[in-house]
Amino acid sequence: MKSPMTPSPVLKPDPEARPACSSASSIVPRELVWAAWTKPEHLSKWFTPAPWTVADCEIDLRPGGIFRTVMRSPEGKEFPNIGCYLEVVPNERLVWTDALLPGYRPAENPFMTAIITLESQGKGTRYTAVAIHRDDAGRKKHEDMGFYRGWGKALDQLVAHVKTM
Amino acid sequence: MKSPMTPSPVLKPDPEARPACSSASSIVPRELVWAAWTKPEHLSKWFTPAPWTVADCEIDLRPGGIFRTVMRSPEGKEFPNIGCYLEVVPNERLVWTDALLPGYRPAENPFMTAIITLESQGKGTRYTAVAIHRDDAGRKKHEDMGFYRGWGKALDQLVAHVKTM
Repeated sequence: MKSPMTPSPVLKPDPEARPACSSASSIVPRELVWAAWTKPEHLSKWFTPAPWTVADCEIDLRPGGIFRTVMRSPEGKEFPNIGCYLEVVPNERLVWTDALLPGYRPAENPFMTAIITLESQGKGTRYTAVAIHRDDAGRKKHEDMGFYRGWGKALDQLVAHVKTM
Repeated sequence: MKSPMTPSPVLKPDPEARPACSSASSIVPRELVWAAWTKPEHLSKWFTPAPWTVADCEIDLRPGGIFRTVMRSPEGKEFPNIGCYLEVVPNERLVWTDALLPGYRPAENPFMTAIITLESQGKGTRYTAVAIHRDDAGRKKHEDMGFYRGWGKALDQLVAHVKTM
């Protein structure tokens, strides 16, 4: 990994003041960021802010396909998350939601849809992650869970991992 | 409309005994069936089994776009439905869900995802509609609401309308 990077995440609330959150950063080449997001062997290296870890990950990278992760707390408790991809545009745009299970089956307790956008910026990437919640209570809950710090830390881990790829 | 048609809907439970329902019929050319499903001026002519009517319809035909209908009961009571398209493959496949609002925002009380598949069959169309529910209770509720009779009747109305196009 020799490309320039600026690992300084710009974390900002959604400009339209809708129930959404976003973060952005200029980082490494977008092909590698895409790989980090879409291959279990890479995603498991950075997806959960340390000391949390990824205990399992399953990816079927197509609209309607499964995106399943199991996060493990420092105490060893496991938290499974199961969702469904909605849009898969290689190196550009990845959308998934936990409002749907694989095959688009409506889920029990939806929390959010996530939209990852990658744009080339010089030799790096403009990276935007937006989390869209059901309502302001959902956004508030995510913020209280540490959205900005958590996603920012995970993004730093992503950049660090991509440098080893 | 000069193409052959066989307006005899085959209504069947989901073969895998999952919480889903489907109906199928060999009918009119799929380009017209597609138009009937995707243009408000056509959809409003057949979508609700008579004597129910479509009071309003809004379609933004792209993944993430709105699919909104307002059904009016014979007594004049209106029932709005708002959903989001997931897949739009012209003349072939249309997927939408009410588990998500436009822009993929998770919705409050999801009921189902619908998958419409159109395949050419001679000069007509093999038409399949599958409704995927959260669980068996959701499927049962839809069946009790008259899924088979209702969707079958709407399909007959669709065929009748397409003949006037």
